[in-house]
Amino acid sequence: MTTSTQIRLAAYPVGEPGDDAYETVTVELPELADGQVLLRTIYLSLDPYMRGRMSTAKSYAEPVALGEVMVGATVCEVVASRSPDRAVGDVVLAYTGWQTHAVVPARHTRRLDPEAAPVSTALGVLGMPGFTAYGGLLEIGRPQPGETVVVAAATGPVGSAVGQIARVKGARAVGIAGGPEKCRVLVDELGFDAAVDHRSPTFVEDLAAATPDGIDVYFENVGGHVTEAVLRRLNRFARIPVCGVVAWYNATAAPEGPDQFPAFLRRILTLSLTVRGFIQDEFVPTHQEAFLSDMSGWVRDGVVRYQEDVVDGLENAPEAFRGLLRGAYLGKLLVQVGDDPTVDP
Amino acid sequence: MTTSTQIRLAAYPVGEPGDDAYETVTVELPELADGQVLLRTIYLSLDPYMRGRMSTAKSYAEPVALGEVMVGATVCEVVASRSPDRAVGDVVLAYTGWQTHAVVPARHTRRLDPEAAPVSTALGVLGMPGFTAYGGLLEIGRPQPGETVVVAAATGPVGSAVGQIARVKGARAVGIAGGPEKCRVLVDELGFDAAVDHRSPTFVEDLAAATPDGIDVYFENVGGHVTEAVLRRLNRFARIPVCGVVAWYNATAAPEGPDQFPAFLRRILTLSLTVRGFIQDEFVPTHQEAFLSDMSGWVRDGVVRYQEDVVDGLENAPEAFRGLLRGAYLGKLLVQVGDDPTVDP
Repeated sequence: MTTSTQIRLAAYPVGEPGDDAYETVTVELPELADGQVLLRTIYLSLDPYMRGRMSTAKSYAEPVALGEVMVGATVCEVVASRSPDRAVGDVVLAYTGWQTHAVVPARHTRRLDPEAAPVSTALGVLGMPGFTAYGGLLEIGRPQPGETVVVAAATGPVGSAVGQIARVKGARAVGIAGGPEKCRVLVDELGFDAAVDHRSPTFVEDLAAATPDGIDVYFENVGGHVTEAVLRRLNRFARIPVCGVVAWYNATAAPEGPDQFPAFLRRILTLSLTVRGFIQDEFVPTHQEAFLSDMSGWVRDGVVRYQEDVVDGLENAPEAFRGLLRGAYLGKLLVQVGDDPTVDP
Repeated sequence: MTTSTQIRLAAYPVGEPGDDAYETVTVELPELADGQVLLRTIYLSLDPYMRGRMSTAKSYAEPVALGEVMVGATVCEVVASRSPDRAVGDVVLAYTGWQTHAVVPARHTRRLDPEAAPVSTALGVLGMPGFTAYGGLLEIGRPQPGETVVVAAATGPVGSAVGQIARVKGARAVGIAGGPEKCRVLVDELGFDAAVDHRSPTFVEDLAAATPDGIDVYFENVGGHVTEAVLRRLNRFARIPVCGVVAWYNATAAPEGPDQFPAFLRRILTLSLTVRGFIQDEFVPTHQEAFLSDMSGWVRDGVVRYQEDVVDGLENAPEAFRGLLRGAYLGKLLVQVGDDPTVDP
C-alpha cells in the first residue's frame, strides 16, 4: 500500500493565503484499476492562477473545494502501471496537485522525452506559461516589426517568453521587473532591449525613457501601479492582452478612490485600444501544435532562454506560493517534491 | 457680399458647456475662388463627440481652437458655385459647423439625392451615426444569432441603429433609455425585444430580467451607472465596442472611490472579455460601401427605422447641445438653421 502526503485547501483565504489556509494529511492510495498509473511527483508547478482557485469569486474555473487537494501541474515518474501506454520509469506531465503521489488514469498524463529538453520545462517555457505567452502575444498582441512591446513580471515564465517572442517577431521588448538584479537579468541574459525597475522612485520617468516611441502592445499580467504607468504611454490602436492581475489577487476590497475606471474607458475610446482577457486553453485547438514546434526550436537554438527557481520540499509550497504573489522569485517557480531521475546528481 | 452668422468657441468649458463657452459673430464671406461653392446651412448635426473637441485633453482629434467656428456636419444648399461639379440648388453633405453660410471647396461636399431618402438622414441613420453603429457592431461586436446585444442611449441615432442591426443579424436587442416614453418607443416603434429604464429605482433588477441569458455584446456609448450594471451581466467572451462615454464627458475630475478599475480589469480577465475603442473613420475603407448599400435597403424596407428631433434656429444650438449631453432628446438631434427646400412646407 502506497501513501501520499497531500496539502489540501482548509479555508478560503482573505488576502494573502496564510498557513491556516492549508492542511497537510497523509492518505493511503487505492489499488490501481485497469488503465491507471501510480505517479510519484518530481516537480510541482506554482502559478499565480492558483490564487483564483482559492476564491469563490466568479471566474473561468470552479474554486478548489474545501478539503480537496490543492490543484497544480506536475512532472511525475510512473512507479506502477496498469496501462499498456505507460511504463514504470516513464516521466510524464500530469495535473496531480500539491501531493507526493497520486493514482490517475494514464490518459490524463503526457509522456515527456528527457532527451529533447529538461523535463521541468514542461511546466514552464514549453508548458502552460510559455503557451500563455505565445498565444496571448501572437493572437491578441500581434506585435509588428519595429513596435514596442512591454511586459511586467518580465523575468517570470510568462513575461520572459513574451519579451523574447516579441524580439523574434522584430519588435522592441521592454521588461518591467522588481529590483536591479532582475533588470540586469532581463537585458544581460534574456536579451530584452530595455528593463525598468518598478520599485524605483523614478519608475514613471524611467518607463517613459525606455519607451520613446510609446507602447504598442502591453502584455498585462500584474495590474497595480505598473499598469497605471503603462496606460499613459500607450499609442493609438495599442493592444492589451490581459492574462493576469497578480498585484490585485490578494485584494480584499476595491481600493480607495478616486475611481480610475471612467478614465480607463475613456482612454480605450480616445486611443482605439483593444483590451482582451484570455485563458490560454482557448488557444489550444488553434495554436498548440505551432507553439510546441516553434518554442522547442527557439529554446534549442538559444533564441528563447528560461530561468527556474526550485524550492525544495512539498512542505515549503505554502510559503513559496506567498513569495510568488509578492514577486520574490526571478524565474519559473517549481517545488521539488522528489528526486529527478533524469538529471545527474 | 454674403455674411455668415457663426457660433465660435470662446473658452474651453469646465463641466457642462455654458453660454460663455461660445461667442456669436457675423462675418463677411470672401468671394468665391475657382472650385469653391457658397453654401447655405439647412441642418446642423449635434453629436456627443463635439464635447471632446471642446477639450484640450489628448484624444483622437485636435480640439477646436479658441475663436474658431464650432465644428459639425451639415446639410446645405448650394447658393453659388464656381465648380462644374456642383450646381446652384444642389443639396450637399458638408462639414461647415455651427454657422449659417460657408465658402468651401466643392470637393469637400457630397451631393445628396433628395429622391432616395430625406436629406436629413445623411446626418443620422445614413450618415456618421448610422455608420458608427454598423461598423462597431459588425466588426467588433460580431453578434451571432440568438445572442443578446445591449445598447444604451438606445433611442439615439447610434443606439437605435445598433439594436435594429442586431435584430437583422438574428440577435436579441435590449435597449436602455431614460424614462418610460423612450422605452415605449424602443419596443413599439423600433422593434427592440426589450427596453429598460435606467432612471428606474429597479434598474439593476430590470436589466437582469431583460437579459435572462446574460449579455454577449454591450455597445458602449454612455458609461456611468449603466455600464456598471451591464458589466455584472456579461457572459464569457462578451465583446464591448466602445464608441462613447457621454455620461462622463462633462466630468471635471475622477469620481470618488472606491476605485473600480482593478475589478474591471479582473473581469476582463476572468470572462475573457474583448473591450475595443473605435472611431468610425477607421472602418471607412473597409465598410463604407457595404454600409450605404445595406442601410439604404434596410431603411427603404422599413427594417431599420429612425427618429429625429429638430430644434429650430442656430441660436438655440448651445442649449440643445447641453440637452443632448443630458439625454433630453429621443432621436437624432438636428438644428434647423435654414429652410429645407426638399420638403413641402
